[in-house]
Amino acid sequence: MKQSLEGIKVLDLTRVLAGPYATMVLADLGANVMKVEMPVKGDDSRHFGPYVGDESAYFMSLNRNKRSMTLNLKTEKGKELLKEMIKNVDVVIENFRPGTMEKLGLGYDVLKEVNPRIIYAAASGFGHSGPYSKRPAYDAIVQAMGGIMSITGQEDGEFTRVGTSVGDITAGLFATIGILAALRYRDETGIGQKVDIAMLDTQLAILENAVARYAVDGEIPAPKGNRHPSIVPFEPFDASDGKIMIAVGNDALWVKFCNATELDHLINKEEFKTNPLRNNNYRILRPLIAEKIVKKTVDEWIEIFNDGGVPNGPINTVDKVLKDPQILARDMVKEVEHPTAGKLLMPGVPIKMSETQGDVVMASPILGQHTDEILKEILDLNDNEIEKLKKENIF
Amino acid sequence: MKQSLEGIKVLDLTRVLAGPYATMVLADLGANVMKVEMPVKGDDSRHFGPYVGDESAYFMSLNRNKRSMTLNLKTEKGKELLKEMIKNVDVVIENFRPGTMEKLGLGYDVLKEVNPRIIYAAASGFGHSGPYSKRPAYDAIVQAMGGIMSITGQEDGEFTRVGTSVGDITAGLFATIGILAALRYRDETGIGQKVDIAMLDTQLAILENAVARYAVDGEIPAPKGNRHPSIVPFEPFDASDGKIMIAVGNDALWVKFCNATELDHLINKEEFKTNPLRNNNYRILRPLIAEKIVKKTVDEWIEIFNDGGVPNGPINTVDKVLKDPQILARDMVKEVEHPTAGKLLMPGVPIKMSETQGDVVMASPILGQHTDEILKEILDLNDNEIEKLKKENIF
Repeated sequence: MKQSLEGIKVLDLTRVLAGPYATMVLADLGANVMKVEMPVKGDDSRHFGPYVGDESAYFMSLNRNKRSMTLNLKTEKGKELLKEMIKNVDVVIENFRPGTMEKLGLGYDVLKEVNPRIIYAAASGFGHSGPYSKRPAYDAIVQAMGGIMSITGQEDGEFTRVGTSVGDITAGLFATIGILAALRYRDETGIGQKVDIAMLDTQLAILENAVARYAVDGEIPAPKGNRHPSIVPFEPFDASDGKIMIAVGNDALWVKFCNATELDHLINKEEFKTNPLRNNNYRILRPLIAEKIVKKTVDEWIEIFNDGGVPNGPINTVDKVLKDPQILARDMVKEVEHPTAGKLLMPGVPIKMSETQGDVVMASPILGQHTDEILKEILDLNDNEIEKLKKENIF
Repeated sequence: MKQSLEGIKVLDLTRVLAGPYATMVLADLGANVMKVEMPVKGDDSRHFGPYVGDESAYFMSLNRNKRSMTLNLKTEKGKELLKEMIKNVDVVIENFRPGTMEKLGLGYDVLKEVNPRIIYAAASGFGHSGPYSKRPAYDAIVQAMGGIMSITGQEDGEFTRVGTSVGDITAGLFATIGILAALRYRDETGIGQKVDIAMLDTQLAILENAVARYAVDGEIPAPKGNRHPSIVPFEPFDASDGKIMIAVGNDALWVKFCNATELDHLINKEEFKTNPLRNNNYRILRPLIAEKIVKKTVDEWIEIFNDGGVPNGPINTVDKVLKDPQILARDMVKEVEHPTAGKLLMPGVPIKMSETQGDVVMASPILGQHTDEILKEILDLNDNEIEKLKKENIF
């Protein structure tokens, strides 16, 4: 056993983002993830651009380390085979609209009869209960309804969608946690269960102090731009060739900051001595800082601030993130060779483990690449049996 | 056993956000989380406003379901006691700046000698390796350096910080996943390990298709505002009394959308028939939609779109999220009664489990509220022994 999730078998019915993100995290940690896709069409995201050769880069970046088989779940034989497979796996995960699996005759109530130890995980926009349960959702809808847009944006500006699909991704992360917790319970008790994750719920769960602030003072949280709501200076400033983020989180850092910027004459000024005072006198203080910062380049300031122990960083675009020395030193950029599409850069595994480091060991599969292999492994079928099944057009 | 993580003992040295978020998720699922805080001062976030009575609402919202003991880790006796406790727990987690635990003589190398089965989890800005490892970080720094700011914001507008501390929170979620995976490996092999999470790494891990797009076409991803980069219509529109988010994700939905908005004469227009065409003709199409949407209220449109099967939603502020019927039906708003501070609203547990549903069973602890209880439970000390230790001023 070299991986933390080695031996865990996951039947993955998911597509596009929230579900595939969860199974990617599981696969990165060594779980045996078998992606079950519709014949011909496959995961919807196989058809999202941009492409590398014939393969979708979007799909490739989310489905590394997984194998693919096709199976038409709309046929009786396909359903029967899926149920047979359910008997021999630990986890099944789907992110269909709630009700879809029930309509197929493959809901949790059915599958738990087939295998009471199964962990059935579902990720959906609104969850498997409640009045909105069956409504369709996309990340943008959930970000809008869940409050995160209403606190993101420039001060007094438009409510702004987070530029990554944080609704899908946090749902994927919470689903992963739920699956691992359910596996532990099953290992102890022999009892499987259903894990039901709603993207909307997870948006509330990440609102953090915005909820606490509103609950206490009743003031509706609004976008604050890039400035910290109560700490000064804690925002980006213009250097001569770009912006630099500065975070002077306490009064000790304020002294370091003044020394680093040669603003030492401000250290003993009564009006800036403590953070509440700097907050009150923000309009006077900001220009004093701004006229200093603009005189040097971002790189010059990074060096000065790092030497002086002042938290700071450039505002990196994606190209710069992928070349950042720290990111590279942490093995966070992987070049993956796809058998037909060639090379693609993608993020590495962000969970660093001293005994069981996960890795990107395999590119994303071609549609149905492992159908035979998985049927042999999970159902112990032989070539003849597989050939017969193939004539029924279920793969 | 009624909770999935029941029986898992976690020694929690964390403070403020990334670490406490991870241990909150663990505690929500039933882990026995014992928060070890510095005497007198405690977790830094106990001093962050706003307050309810004498308690920080910020602290309260992140530390429910945990118990608190004080212990001065700068004293020899304090270190000795911590090591004794390490022998009897499953997980220790900290989010100090890398090097801090080593300086205290409590690094992983020391603690694994004390208990080879221990899972040692660390969350930090840049991780425990690499050239930036020891730099101080705040969420804003990591959001800036990790690329998410560079893809968030209005089109052609400023790079924008996500309004919630997504750097801390995703680090907390990945740390939780790493801990659960490491526990599984330990249960199978008897071998503990170190889990090292860098906030910066996790920001790259959530950039999603921005990385794939850049890797393929070399174009640097930029903020796209609230509009989908390639699907039309997929953005907020002004209704008569506010904005509504609309997500017409495919051509079948386009027909439904036209019917719902009484724009059925557009259905057969060649220039709008497919998504690529709608994209090309965005400038003609948008005003045609906008002049319709502005004629009714948000609530009227929600009803119309829901009846017509068109994905849509209001852009909710935090007050509205907390009153949303779906959020309430999913038990996602909890009112917690704190023994001294009174009532506080906070998010519920977003992982819904059919056998072992987590819950908010306890308000956040007062500093050191459970010192005696934890010493008795973990070290099997009696009252006399605890009294003696107290004279050494380590609690």
